[in-house]
Amino acid sequence: MSLKEEALLLHKKNQGKITVNSKVEVKNREDLTLAYSPGVAEPCLEIVKDKSEVYNYTAKGNLVAVVSDGTAVLGLGDIGPEAAMPVMEGKAVLFKEFAGVDAFPICLNTKDVDEIVETVKRLEPTFGGINLEDISAPRCIEIEERLKKELDIPVFHDDQHGTAIVVLAGLINAAKSVDKKLEDLKVLVNGAGAAGLAIARLLLNVGIKDIILVDKFGALASGVKEMNTIQKELAEITNPEGKRGSLGEVIVGRDVFIGVSAPNILTKDMVESMAKDAIIFAMANPVPEINPDLAKEAGAKIIGTGRSDYPNQVNNVLAFPGIFKGALKVQAREITEQMKIAAAYGIAELIDEDELSADYVIPNPFNKKVVNRVALEVAKKAIKDGLAKRVLSEEELQKEFS
Amino acid sequence: MSLKEEALLLHKKNQGKITVNSKVEVKNREDLTLAYSPGVAEPCLEIVKDKSEVYNYTAKGNLVAVVSDGTAVLGLGDIGPEAAMPVMEGKAVLFKEFAGVDAFPICLNTKDVDEIVETVKRLEPTFGGINLEDISAPRCIEIEERLKKELDIPVFHDDQHGTAIVVLAGLINAAKSVDKKLEDLKVLVNGAGAAGLAIARLLLNVGIKDIILVDKFGALASGVKEMNTIQKELAEITNPEGKRGSLGEVIVGRDVFIGVSAPNILTKDMVESMAKDAIIFAMANPVPEINPDLAKEAGAKIIGTGRSDYPNQVNNVLAFPGIFKGALKVQAREITEQMKIAAAYGIAELIDEDELSADYVIPNPFNKKVVNRVALEVAKKAIKDGLAKRVLSEEELQKEFS
Repeated sequence: MSLKEEALLLHKKNQGKITVNSKVEVKNREDLTLAYSPGVAEPCLEIVKDKSEVYNYTAKGNLVAVVSDGTAVLGLGDIGPEAAMPVMEGKAVLFKEFAGVDAFPICLNTKDVDEIVETVKRLEPTFGGINLEDISAPRCIEIEERLKKELDIPVFHDDQHGTAIVVLAGLINAAKSVDKKLEDLKVLVNGAGAAGLAIARLLLNVGIKDIILVDKFGALASGVKEMNTIQKELAEITNPEGKRGSLGEVIVGRDVFIGVSAPNILTKDMVESMAKDAIIFAMANPVPEINPDLAKEAGAKIIGTGRSDYPNQVNNVLAFPGIFKGALKVQAREITEQMKIAAAYGIAELIDEDELSADYVIPNPFNKKVVNRVALEVAKKAIKDGLAKRVLSEEELQKEFS
Repeated sequence: MSLKEEALLLHKKNQGKITVNSKVEVKNREDLTLAYSPGVAEPCLEIVKDKSEVYNYTAKGNLVAVVSDGTAVLGLGDIGPEAAMPVMEGKAVLFKEFAGVDAFPICLNTKDVDEIVETVKRLEPTFGGINLEDISAPRCIEIEERLKKELDIPVFHDDQHGTAIVVLAGLINAAKSVDKKLEDLKVLVNGAGAAGLAIARLLLNVGIKDIILVDKFGALASGVKEMNTIQKELAEITNPEGKRGSLGEVIVGRDVFIGVSAPNILTKDMVESMAKDAIIFAMANPVPEINPDLAKEAGAKIIGTGRSDYPNQVNNVLAFPGIFKGALKVQAREITEQMKIAAAYGIAELIDEDELSADYVIPNPFNKKVVNRVALEVAKKAIKDGLAKRVLSEEELQKEFS
């Protein structure tokens, strides 16, 4: 059977991939009395007395909404909310299988930013966290920013920040592997859309000083006319030397190429013009910005892609399940840049120094230690920074995430 | 342990009552490839080609949203969306345990009718049906009517129609038991709120001609000043003799009292003034309109309540799980009065003539035959009336609901 046939069969025979199950039995009148009327009034009344009890008596505390409008689904584009359902269900499956987090697909019949924001706000009582997914740029950035401000539960746009966290984890280990200092790396991020901008922000926040963002029109730099509002903001805090020009021009001498752009856009010549021991994360999917073998021929030392059939797969599943698991356990109010950085270090440190190699700077997505390590780091940081509504001791944290 | 302690423990130890599970395994790269990228693109593309395929490749077709704003929760009143969560989760549990239907609580952070309607419309891509729950009157009536018009999936306000269906089922058997013709029964419905109005409508639609609705101000009749808009409409099609007066005045000679009102409102004298072999459904909860023993003393023949510790429990769980199971299986566009009547006859007929007695006109809520019988009747009626998007043969229906 072809992959297509197998995938269709898997989805059809189960009528989708998720199911809502009961955690309690209802076999007789006594069960009914406890799980429903009149017993159910008791937890209701506890929540009336103290709203925070909703985390103790309902599923909210372990429940994430996977919200999409279906406008930027995988590489398929704007396919609409119904056609986006298999992906959102898939994401819910990964939340459950990797982190034990309950997640539920919410595919919205609107593309309007205001309407999406207000709809998610109205859904807040049910959920402990919001994972935005496959919403087209730049709308996704505005939606996330507004929801972060207006909700008291964590909001996370995985397409931006999940990728950024895993890239940073890879970069931490790659720098170590080629014996360069993380902060001193000269980085080029190709693709100044939502993911590229989130990556650049996270790298800036971890202390990397020299980052150039490149879009189709060339490097983002103060005064460049083609930039949109968000790119203009980023141009002010990146590209410290104000370099201008095309990818081929500004890549000269760079230590790192990070691609969230288009297939085969990075040529052998360009890689040859980079600094010694170049690091490349080429994440265009399914065809990367450069074929990893070609990049190696051109002198690149470390290469990661989005693909599972090459080493160093940048797979978001390394980040989002643990991010939410950690944030939910301590009822974090938000997921901050510092929490993302803590997560990235957690992922990176799962590879011991003596295991580290050019082909192994990012852990395997099925490494069972990842999710709890990420969750632990996120929870610790949330508590430390006063953003946790539920504060656990170090011992309790270790127990929760072991 | 008290009921209170037991109920609190049950909810706390499980952190609520529902969980979202995966129907597929994700143990290795191959699993990931099928359930998520890139395999998941295949069902997406099938849905892009034909939107109705969403029923085959996703969970939508067996998925009901249990929607509430928390304004009329049990007898607790307007306790807000967070405190309503235990009840909505409980409802989801009943959907799953009684009918195998996936149901998910949606507790909304708004009480505005327009906002509730537009929010549910935006959620339509995810769900196969909408169960409205514990929304205060008269808002619940407007919300249901608008959603019925604007959505292409079934919408059902259980507090109104679930009760109405079970009452009708009980009445069908009660009439048989006392040897009166259903259509000729003189009925009084006490409580002209959302449930009372829905009951009156359903009884009218089944052919009962003489129904009087009574509210706090007395009988609904053409020209009575205190009536609201919806009561005015009902007054035009009920109370054929235009009777006016208090409950005590208009109950004289009635065959049936149906109470969705307040505790102990029906006195012994009133029951004594009713016709011979009176039928009483006193559903105020937890204290009925009249104590069943007292009603019997006063000469009532058949008595039903909302309580599980007396015979003839009017429990919505007899209706809504099967209603949605049937409607979902044939992708019914709506749940019509005729489908509700078919469901009521289905419930009633589960009690054989030779089993029928004054204390057994309504089946036990745990009678396992109920859900499939209701589902079968609803599905058949939907197909017959051209309201099913998925048409099954008689044989397929029997198989589906056996």
